[in-house]
This record gives sequence, C-alpha cells and structure tokens, in this order.
Amino acid sequence: MGSEDRGQLARHFPEHGIWAPVLSPLDHELAADASRLIVHGQNLLAEGCHGLLLWGSTGEAPSFSVRERKVLLEQVLAGGLPPERLMVGVGCCAWPDTLELARHALANGCPRILVVPPFYYKGISDPGLFRVYADLIEGLAHPDLRLYLYHFPKLSGVPIPLTVVSRLQTTFPEIIAGIKDSSGDAAHTLEYIRHFPELAIFPGTESLLLPMLEQGGAGCITANANVCAGAIRQLYDAWLDGDPDAPERQQAVTRVRRAIEANPLIPVLKALVAESRQDAGWRRLRAPFCDSDIPELSSLLKVFSA
Amino acid sequence: MGSEDRGQLARHFPEHGIWAPVLSPLDHELAADASRLIVHGQNLLAEGCHGLLLWGSTGEAPSFSVRERKVLLEQVLAGGLPPERLMVGVGCCAWPDTLELARHALANGCPRILVVPPFYYKGISDPGLFRVYADLIEGLAHPDLRLYLYHFPKLSGVPIPLTVVSRLQTTFPEIIAGIKDSSGDAAHTLEYIRHFPELAIFPGTESLLLPMLEQGGAGCITANANVCAGAIRQLYDAWLDGDPDAPERQQAVTRVRRAIEANPLIPVLKALVAESRQDAGWRRLRAPFCDSDIPELSSLLKVFSA
Repeated sequence: MGSEDRGQLARHFPEHGIWAPVLSPLDHELAADASRLIVHGQNLLAEGCHGLLLWGSTGEAPSFSVRERKVLLEQVLAGGLPPERLMVGVGCCAWPDTLELARHALANGCPRILVVPPFYYKGISDPGLFRVYADLIEGLAHPDLRLYLYHFPKLSGVPIPLTVVSRLQTTFPEIIAGIKDSSGDAAHTLEYIRHFPELAIFPGTESLLLPMLEQGGAGCITANANVCAGAIRQLYDAWLDGDPDAPERQQAVTRVRRAIEANPLIPVLKALVAESRQDAGWRRLRAPFCDSDIPELSSLLKVFSA
Repeated sequence: MGSEDRGQLARHFPEHGIWAPVLSPLDHELAADASRLIVHGQNLLAEGCHGLLLWGSTGEAPSFSVRERKVLLEQVLAGGLPPERLMVGVGCCAWPDTLELARHALANGCPRILVVPPFYYKGISDPGLFRVYADLIEGLAHPDLRLYLYHFPKLSGVPIPLTVVSRLQTTFPEIIAGIKDSSGDAAHTLEYIRHFPELAIFPGTESLLLPMLEQGGAGCITANANVCAGAIRQLYDAWLDGDPDAPERQQAVTRVRRAIEANPLIPVLKALVAESRQDAGWRRLRAPFCDSDIPELSSLLKVFSA
C-alpha cells in the first residue's frame, strides 16, 4: 500500500490503528494521578499510538467511582491530551452511572465511548443486552456519539453475540462505530469482521494485529501498548506499507506479549512503566490488586532487550 | 429443642434465621419504588422472615447508583422497616463506593453489611482480596460494624477462600460476623461451617436449609423468601422444635425451589409477587433484564398451589 493510499485510509477511518488503553497511575493516597497520566499519554502518542483509551479494563476503571472517572477525564483534557485522540470507557453495571459518564464524555468533546455490558448478572438474554445499549443511546440522544461495543467475556462474563450487534447496527447505524474484541479468539474476531464490514473491529491483543488487519480488522486496542507502543506501531505501518518483514515483526511482538501475559497484567504493566520511567510511584495499585501481585521483573526485562 | 432453648438461641444469635434479600420494585420511570418495598418488607417480616437484606443480588443492587442505593435505604427506614432487622448489601467494584455505602448504612443504624468482592477482575490473589476487606474495615473504623462476606462465585467470579476468611477473622475478630454462601454447593458451605464455628454461615438457598442447620449453619438468606417466606420459616421452626416432619417440609420447600430456579430468577420472582399482590407494576425490571425474560407463570403457579 503506497503512502497516498495510507493517507486516504487514515482520513476515511480516523479511528483505525493502535490504541493504548492507558494505565491509571496513582498518587500516594491511591487517587488517580493526572500529572503522571498526562506525561504517559503524551509519550504514548509520540511513540506512535493513534489513540488512547481512558478508563478501560487496563485503566482499572471499575475500581474508580463515577466522580473520580469524570474528574480524571477533565484533568487530562485540561493537561493537553487531545480529545480527538481519546476514547472513553463508560460501561458500568448501573445504567444511571453509564449514562452520566457518557454524557460527561460527550460534553467534554469525546464522542467515542467504549461500553462493556453490565457485568454482574450472567446469562443475560439477547433482548436484555440490546436494551442496555438502546437505553443508553436513546438516553443520550446525541448525533455525534460513536459507540464501541466491548466484548470481553473473560472479565465481564457477558458476551456480545452477533445477533445483538446486528440488531444494534440496524437500529442505530450512525451510532454503533465498532467493537473491541478482547476474547483473544481469532475465529471470534473474524466473525465480527465478516458480519460487520462497516464497523471498526479491534482485537484486544497485538498478537492478532497482522492476521486481523489482513482480514479487514481496524488495528488493535491493547494493554501492552503501555509498554511497547513503538514496536506495535511499526508492525501496523509495515502492514500498511506492504513491507515483507511484517510477519517477522508480528512474531517479535507476539513473543513479548507472551512473556508479559504470563504475569498479572495490570501489576506487571505498572511495574514495567515504573522501571522505564524510573518512577516507583507508578507501581501503586488499587485493591483488588496489591503489591505482592507484582512479579520480579528481571527475566521479563531480558525479553524486552532481546 | 424446647421453647426455652429456642429463646436463648435467638438472644445469642439475633441474626440467625431466615433472611429475605428483598426484590427492588420499580416505579413507572424504573426508579426504585420505596412505597411498594416497604409494604413488601412488612409482609415478609409478618410472614416469618427474621430479617431483610436490602440491595443483595436479588435486589438488582449492581444496577443502581450509589445515590439511589442510599436514598432507598433512607426511605424504607423512614417508612418503618426496623434497622435491627436489616442487613445492607454495600459491595461495589470501586472501593470509594463501597466505603460510602457502608458509612451510610452505619450512620443510619444498620451495622450489618454484606460485602461481595469487587467483581470485574478475576483471578484475584489472596492478599489482594484480604486487602479489599481490610481497607474497608480500616476505612470505616467503626466498632459496631458487623461484616458478612458474600461468596457468590457464579456471579461475582471471585470466590472467598478459607485462607482469606481465616486471615480476616484473625485480624478483625469483632467485625467479621458471617458469610452468605451462594455457591449452592453443600460441601463448600460445610467447609465454612467447620472452619469457622464462630461465624454465622448462611447458605444462599433454602434447599440446603435443614442439612446445614443440622451441621451448625445459621439459617439461610434466599431469594425465594420473597415468594414463600412462610413455608421456609416453618421449616426453620420445625428444625428448632425437633419436629419429626422437618425432612418432609424440606422436600416440599426444595420442590418449589427447583420449579422457580428453572426460570430467570429476578424476572420470575418479580412476576410472582406481581401475581400474588395483583399489582402488575411489580413486574418492572431494569436492564440488563427485560420484560421478555419473564416466563409464563401458569405451570409454576400449579407447583405453588400443589
């Protein structure tokens, strides 16, 4: 793909590419630390991320109150993170909370929201799940809204079936913008891509970046972008450029991924950022995570430097 | 057991017995409807419940905001439900939310709180889970607090291992009061009973009422008490009185349970209350549940009248 095509692709699909669901650094009282996050976000954009997801699973979103989530968004915007490069996670169990966070994101110039289904009750019916999203979209009644569905059955326990996506897309064609598929299951992500060519389908792991891009995927939204944004972006660009060494880059990226994901994800990523920024404060975690969840890093650091 | 022993038992363990995790009736705007709930709660106490759990899983707790949960508690207390007969579910994913709800319950004369672990992240370490509860107890710093652990792995995805209960009990012996075990697994409930004879262990189903009482259990906290409190209480009393027909009562109660639990639980229970009170408003549900989750009741009603 030539540079002209690439420019065209970027204009047509401004959301395609590599997104980092940013970690939430904490201050000494375990409150979200906007200053550390602003620097981290700016670094990630400079290292090649096309966008940042605030308050995803990696950002410990469910561990923060609605008020805390709103305040942090306002702070990072005031600190200069560009709203057009942000997606905001707003899915809570309680509909009033999700509505409040989504309204707030829209009011602050962030129309891209990621919405995980309410994740306490399991075995949710298709009509019930449709209603979750329909109530939200109708409650917001905002033409700029770009809603991304968040399929992450291992954590939410509530998968988003093709039938529900289809009904939502038919009912709200201008609003449903894409899906983050964190199943880690290539076959499942492919199903989304094949059934919904108009939607931006992001696997939740860079291990699937190249194979899914080749099938029409939109890029990826991956926790590991917090610590290896550059390599993941280079892989994306290699694909865009038709570079023959793209598969080799994919292998290298996947190797690092495997080494990281052998550990508790959020604790190890925070510790890796702490290490690279030489800032021990980055290691702080909110319950249900704790210090002893952080592994010894030496063998992992060897994989990075390999 | 004679009536004197029974009186003594009740004085020593005021929390033992049959608890109804009350459903949350909704008004036409799908807000919690305190007036319907006050009547329902009074009826359940009159039908024999020893206590009421407000904002349990059955009460659709996770589907309501912190503000809504506080307001409803204040309303039912103002409406005359006795605080000494209440337990309040306060467990949220975000620690500030759990703390706020627990403080509010204490400030309103309700020291008995039920706390489900934060339920988004899975594979939580024992030290992390301990910290969830320790942070809460230390944050509250209130000697009246009576904390009940809520083990419901099918919904929360976060079991509460014996090792964590043990460490909590050793660290906070005056605070940790009991466990609601909604695993539905008799062997698991027995483990809790055997390891923690000082704690009030409640199975989350009346199917296990008699066998667990016989082993030292404290009663049960069961959704079905919303629709068959009388029969469950009679079974409890039959056990207390050493009545030889207790096993037969257990069988009858279990038969009804099986018929109910073949359906989506909250929708069917609300529909059954609507039926018995002749009040269609009781059928209202918040997403992720919806009207079409309510089954046809006729065959179920036959089981009740059998």
